[in-house]
Amino acid sequence: MDDNNFELLHQYWQACNYLAVGQIYLKDNVLLKQPLTVAHIKPRLLGHWGTSPGLNLIYVHLNRLINATGAKILFIAGPGHGAPAVLANTYLEGSYTDIYPEITQDEQGIQKFFRQFSTPGGIPSHVSADTPGSIHEGGELGYCLSHAAGAVFDNPDLIAACVIGDGEAETAPLEGSWKSIRFLNPGRDGAVLPILHLNGYKISSPTVLSRLPKQHAIDYLKSYGYEVHWVEGSDPKEVHADLAKQLDRAYQKIREIQQAARSGSDWQQMPWPLIVLQTPKGWTCPKELDGQKLEGTFRSHQVPLEDVTQDDQQLALLEKWLRSYQPEQLFDEQGRLTSNLKGLIPDASKRMGSNLSANGGLKLKELNLPEPQHYQLEVRLPGQHFGQATMQLGRYLRDVFKLNEKAANFRLFCPDETESNRLGDVFEATGRFYLGEPRSEDENLSETGRVMEVLSEHLCQGWMEGYLLTGRHGIFSCYEAFITIIDSMFNQYAKWLKTCSELSWRAPLASFNYLLTSHTWRQDHNGYSHQGPGFIDTVASKKREIVNIYLPPDANSLLVVMHACLSSKDKINLVIAGKQPELQWMDWKAAMQHCEKGISVWEWAGNDQNSEPDIILACAGDVPTLEAVAASWLLQKHFPELKVRLVNVVNLLSLTPGKNHAHGVSDEDFTKIFTENTHVIFAFHGYVGIIHDLIHGRPNPERFHVRGFKEEGTTTTPFDMVVLNEASRYHLAIEAISRSGTKGADQVIGGFNQKLWEHHQYIREHLQDMPEIRDWKWLMPA
Amino acid sequence: MDDNNFELLHQYWQACNYLAVGQIYLKDNVLLKQPLTVAHIKPRLLGHWGTSPGLNLIYVHLNRLINATGAKILFIAGPGHGAPAVLANTYLEGSYTDIYPEITQDEQGIQKFFRQFSTPGGIPSHVSADTPGSIHEGGELGYCLSHAAGAVFDNPDLIAACVIGDGEAETAPLEGSWKSIRFLNPGRDGAVLPILHLNGYKISSPTVLSRLPKQHAIDYLKSYGYEVHWVEGSDPKEVHADLAKQLDRAYQKIREIQQAARSGSDWQQMPWPLIVLQTPKGWTCPKELDGQKLEGTFRSHQVPLEDVTQDDQQLALLEKWLRSYQPEQLFDEQGRLTSNLKGLIPDASKRMGSNLSANGGLKLKELNLPEPQHYQLEVRLPGQHFGQATMQLGRYLRDVFKLNEKAANFRLFCPDETESNRLGDVFEATGRFYLGEPRSEDENLSETGRVMEVLSEHLCQGWMEGYLLTGRHGIFSCYEAFITIIDSMFNQYAKWLKTCSELSWRAPLASFNYLLTSHTWRQDHNGYSHQGPGFIDTVASKKREIVNIYLPPDANSLLVVMHACLSSKDKINLVIAGKQPELQWMDWKAAMQHCEKGISVWEWAGNDQNSEPDIILACAGDVPTLEAVAASWLLQKHFPELKVRLVNVVNLLSLTPGKNHAHGVSDEDFTKIFTENTHVIFAFHGYVGIIHDLIHGRPNPERFHVRGFKEEGTTTTPFDMVVLNEASRYHLAIEAISRSGTKGADQVIGGFNQKLWEHHQYIREHLQDMPEIRDWKWLMPA
Repeated sequence: MDDNNFELLHQYWQACNYLAVGQIYLKDNVLLKQPLTVAHIKPRLLGHWGTSPGLNLIYVHLNRLINATGAKILFIAGPGHGAPAVLANTYLEGSYTDIYPEITQDEQGIQKFFRQFSTPGGIPSHVSADTPGSIHEGGELGYCLSHAAGAVFDNPDLIAACVIGDGEAETAPLEGSWKSIRFLNPGRDGAVLPILHLNGYKISSPTVLSRLPKQHAIDYLKSYGYEVHWVEGSDPKEVHADLAKQLDRAYQKIREIQQAARSGSDWQQMPWPLIVLQTPKGWTCPKELDGQKLEGTFRSHQVPLEDVTQDDQQLALLEKWLRSYQPEQLFDEQGRLTSNLKGLIPDASKRMGSNLSANGGLKLKELNLPEPQHYQLEVRLPGQHFGQATMQLGRYLRDVFKLNEKAANFRLFCPDETESNRLGDVFEATGRFYLGEPRSEDENLSETGRVMEVLSEHLCQGWMEGYLLTGRHGIFSCYEAFITIIDSMFNQYAKWLKTCSELSWRAPLASFNYLLTSHTWRQDHNGYSHQGPGFIDTVASKKREIVNIYLPPDANSLLVVMHACLSSKDKINLVIAGKQPELQWMDWKAAMQHCEKGISVWEWAGNDQNSEPDIILACAGDVPTLEAVAASWLLQKHFPELKVRLVNVVNLLSLTPGKNHAHGVSDEDFTKIFTENTHVIFAFHGYVGIIHDLIHGRPNPERFHVRGFKEEGTTTTPFDMVVLNEASRYHLAIEAISRSGTKGADQVIGGFNQKLWEHHQYIREHLQDMPEIRDWKWLMPA
Repeated sequence: MDDNNFELLHQYWQACNYLAVGQIYLKDNVLLKQPLTVAHIKPRLLGHWGTSPGLNLIYVHLNRLINATGAKILFIAGPGHGAPAVLANTYLEGSYTDIYPEITQDEQGIQKFFRQFSTPGGIPSHVSADTPGSIHEGGELGYCLSHAAGAVFDNPDLIAACVIGDGEAETAPLEGSWKSIRFLNPGRDGAVLPILHLNGYKISSPTVLSRLPKQHAIDYLKSYGYEVHWVEGSDPKEVHADLAKQLDRAYQKIREIQQAARSGSDWQQMPWPLIVLQTPKGWTCPKELDGQKLEGTFRSHQVPLEDVTQDDQQLALLEKWLRSYQPEQLFDEQGRLTSNLKGLIPDASKRMGSNLSANGGLKLKELNLPEPQHYQLEVRLPGQHFGQATMQLGRYLRDVFKLNEKAANFRLFCPDETESNRLGDVFEATGRFYLGEPRSEDENLSETGRVMEVLSEHLCQGWMEGYLLTGRHGIFSCYEAFITIIDSMFNQYAKWLKTCSELSWRAPLASFNYLLTSHTWRQDHNGYSHQGPGFIDTVASKKREIVNIYLPPDANSLLVVMHACLSSKDKINLVIAGKQPELQWMDWKAAMQHCEKGISVWEWAGNDQNSEPDIILACAGDVPTLEAVAASWLLQKHFPELKVRLVNVVNLLSLTPGKNHAHGVSDEDFTKIFTENTHVIFAFHGYVGIIHDLIHGRPNPERFHVRGFKEEGTTTTPFDMVVLNEASRYHLAIEAISRSGTKGADQVIGGFNQKLWEHHQYIREHLQDMPEIRDWKWLMPA
């Protein structure tokens, strides 16, 4: 590349930097045709300058690489608070105007572009779903690299260029993501090109990585399997030349690895390339202010000159700064990028801001799903047969893998629990992904496996987000208690989906499906640390238009629910189901009908015959359902005249008043099910609070008496778990008797309390002689 | 060390292994005095064998080191599911019997010890608060190394020997913890000795680290600043010799570093030692079963022989396995460890199971706290002065640092946000911890600083847990939205505290104090990704005896609350307060009284004069309080005859019915404040669901109409945030008018709607001419 080309590249970078500074400061005189005055300055100065020149530099150089090679590159900005840079580039290349035509490619467009940034009524200050070409929110740090890996799984032509700030590099999720390359098979997957931007500072402290001796930093990255291409400097000319060279080399390395892998040669000893770019924070801003360094320090993190409207010196510095980019040489009189600079923009189909993978819904291919009833458990009568819900599902998922093998667009993500969660049948169709030669004692490992097992919920979540956002399908299967490890990632993903739902240009995505098993009530063996249903609450707090919470009580309902989830779009589906042998309640037809309604009366389990019941037993979740059915049976046995109704809830949010949720049953249906006034004893899988919330606004909410997990647990028996939490059949039955005002029940209540006392004694005295765990008989309702 | 000593060491290890296997299998014949029969086998086989022999080996060798050097060592078992090993060791050394005298040091004691393990009515299957010498739950993986670092901060004599499983080493939080050594100052802190136990497998897959070429794994660890001492093998004799040698070396390195640091020599080029122990998973269990390898594979992860009661061959294998340890040579006829093996047990004061730091409450020294009123803001009239709550608190905290400098038992943990959160005054008393020579442009860095800034919420949480559990004090200050990153760590810590509360031998600890600022409503500049109040719900889901949630609405109440938090014990205190300039409501006396009650009527803000109000405005949180006060003012202005009461809630859980929470106000007081029937318009900081939950069980809960954050946000103005979420003064006032049945209000409601329309227009048209952000005037209630 000759000097002239570098000069053009440099000018293009100047244009990006100019637009970035302009977004932060200018509401008028956007091309600096007049001397700068206070009247041209925005009323509120917001935005992060510090990381922007680096992001701009990288973007510009990736454009050069695209032009030179035709590569398809997805740009992921870890430091997405540097939105001014990403926006500037997508604007300059035309992607922004394609999507938002009112932001025209002229002076007026630039003005609108500046004004909208980080302004009330405008656009966010961070990269978000609004930003063309992005699959990555620029808020919470730590997930860019796992998103990048997820994006290139089964995307052989894609390179995800992932900029990682040295602040983000301190987070645990990011440190846990470097090893993602060990889960890439270049034979079928694309490539991740990490670009670690060492600019030295976080908000106000130096970063750990930037203060390591250079060789230590290189060793750190090498040890993960990368070959480090180090670019550093503060002389733009040198940095341009070196960055271009190193990017070329990195690209070549990627292609060499891919060629080797795709031609059947050995590639596993070939390290993946990684770029380190060490340039000053806030590069090209004023060097100093009032004797304190700005450029190259934490003081350039956000707005380097904060008082331009109050301080003439600062205003003058700002003008000098803006003019240092020589906007008059970058834009013509109309405010259009000069034509020689336009020549640096890749072809429309290759522009990073228009990368189809970043609007994955456009690439989404429906899953080819098997008929779920083929996997049903035969259930002749409710409560007579045992079955393992997730085991049935495993067979269904096995065939999902088979039917979509060619499309290569479905993966199962799981922290080493696929077998433990009884989904092992999937291994008949695919393997656990593993590179290299398995050892004789290994099982089900494969270089082409689509079960992604890594002991990191963060990676599972991040990979799957990247996979879905680029137009594919998946399930994340996890122990219930440990899914809260990714609470915050879920929060951010829900925000992303909510924002997408407001953007007509974002095409619908496959839903994010969680399968939580090994759940709270049946972790009696692993103990208290494994018992926690809090994810339900986290999910329920989000926009109810985009979330579903399903608690299928048996195998057939799990099949119905998961089939629906895999067919759905733009949702986050939380499915909680047991893996242990449990009584089955519904045949296929009943399961279909029940799941369709979300909530319904189980007539066989009550005796009210559609008349006004004396008491209602409600339940949600497999274990609470067993207890409620058993309680109903106890009540009917002892009080044949008492009219008992049993209601099961499979779609939790159907409880919420209809106006708040598309799936909420109407007030009319709610009253049909729960009546107006009858007391409801509600056995719930999770913490009780969410039920109190969901029924607020329904008639007479105070008649709902909820029992659920109240943080009592240990290593014990399944039945003791419900006793400890006062949610056993006896607890339910006693409260039902009391709330229904049943008379003459003292003896029966005494009998139930006696049972609880015997249980208590049994647990207490178990150590004495250790008889058979007689708890298992409690698995039967009667 | 001569062969004879190794033989003893080996026998002691055999004793531990025997006791570990025994806990999993045996209920009788615990010393194998008779041939093994099915009658001796426990009815349910639970426990994790795979990691146990490795844990035992390490524990035994650390005992040897303690005997040789007198070192004070805290044992942290990352693979805490290997509780049989940790329990075996604490039992053998006598620590267990000291705490649980019924588990005697004889055959009967061993039987009880075996029977209680992982048994209903017994003890958990994982290391937990029940386990002597432990500060680390053996459930959720990822936090052992950050706990270890936190434990040794300001603990110069302590070495935390931290065993890390290769499964755990895959988690993001663990990978993010290796760098903790960069935050250790050996001049004043103790040392962490990581022992990475590479046994090759997780539940069913190989681990990433164990399949790296050895040199890659070494490079990986070296790059973090460790010197790797690698021990591997499957011949016990060789491994004993090598492990002893490497532990001696590691110990010597630690002392060399400490001596250098404490004598003022340069130590920073000296790497910290780390041990890698590569031994077979399930080492010493049967090699094979039915032609499939057991020892050295994932099949030994839990119970290697599962069917001993059904399968004679397996029973025979188990007997052979147990007898391979030669129990008759380890225990005497009475079941006491033979006296030559007893000689290997460290002195009582040095036994790891009795380490005082693991029961930190015993070492806890009260903080010397300044009088909080010295830092009060003068507030002559409510709503007349502006102040910044966290800035006032920063001054108070500065003096907490000063007053406890000598005691060296207080730290502030924060992800690089101390300055941003307006707590910068603390830097007058202490620095940000930073090793090495600061550069001229750095600020407030110090090698002896007690502000621990690292861009990792996981590390902040893990360090602080370790610090508190070993008997010290702290605050974790964080952006509100990003604290959910550690939701799951909080869950586990809450479980730990709950279990401690049931153990009389666990002494009270200083409370865990969260200060969340940069909160949801005032992240209008950073946008939607920074707006999320979900941590309130996570905290509220836990045992209410151990959690508090405070929403101080101004500076003085924040001071009162935080002072109380720093004086409290065994709680988790969540405090949410703003950092921006906001109106102040309470003088010192009012703040004291209000916080004492937790919830009270603000008479000056209403006009009901203690008579029955027509409408109640309630609020919790600084921004909702402003809106509620403004709504009250609007109502009083337009409807002087309408009796309005304003209630502020500072202690959120005081709303909950008293029987569920120590801090819940009595039903009588609740009715005094909220009456029986009056409609309550509740402006809340967080998601509305938690209020619906808290008032369930109070009279007529359906009259509570809650407005809070409903996932609407972006980069906008503070006032627009409350408008977007329909929680502004106008929304509150309109609902108040409607719910109170106020007649003839159409015109006023029209006026309020007009104001909202104008605001909408203002936001919409803001981009047109970008006038001053007139939003600021909304900060005034009138």
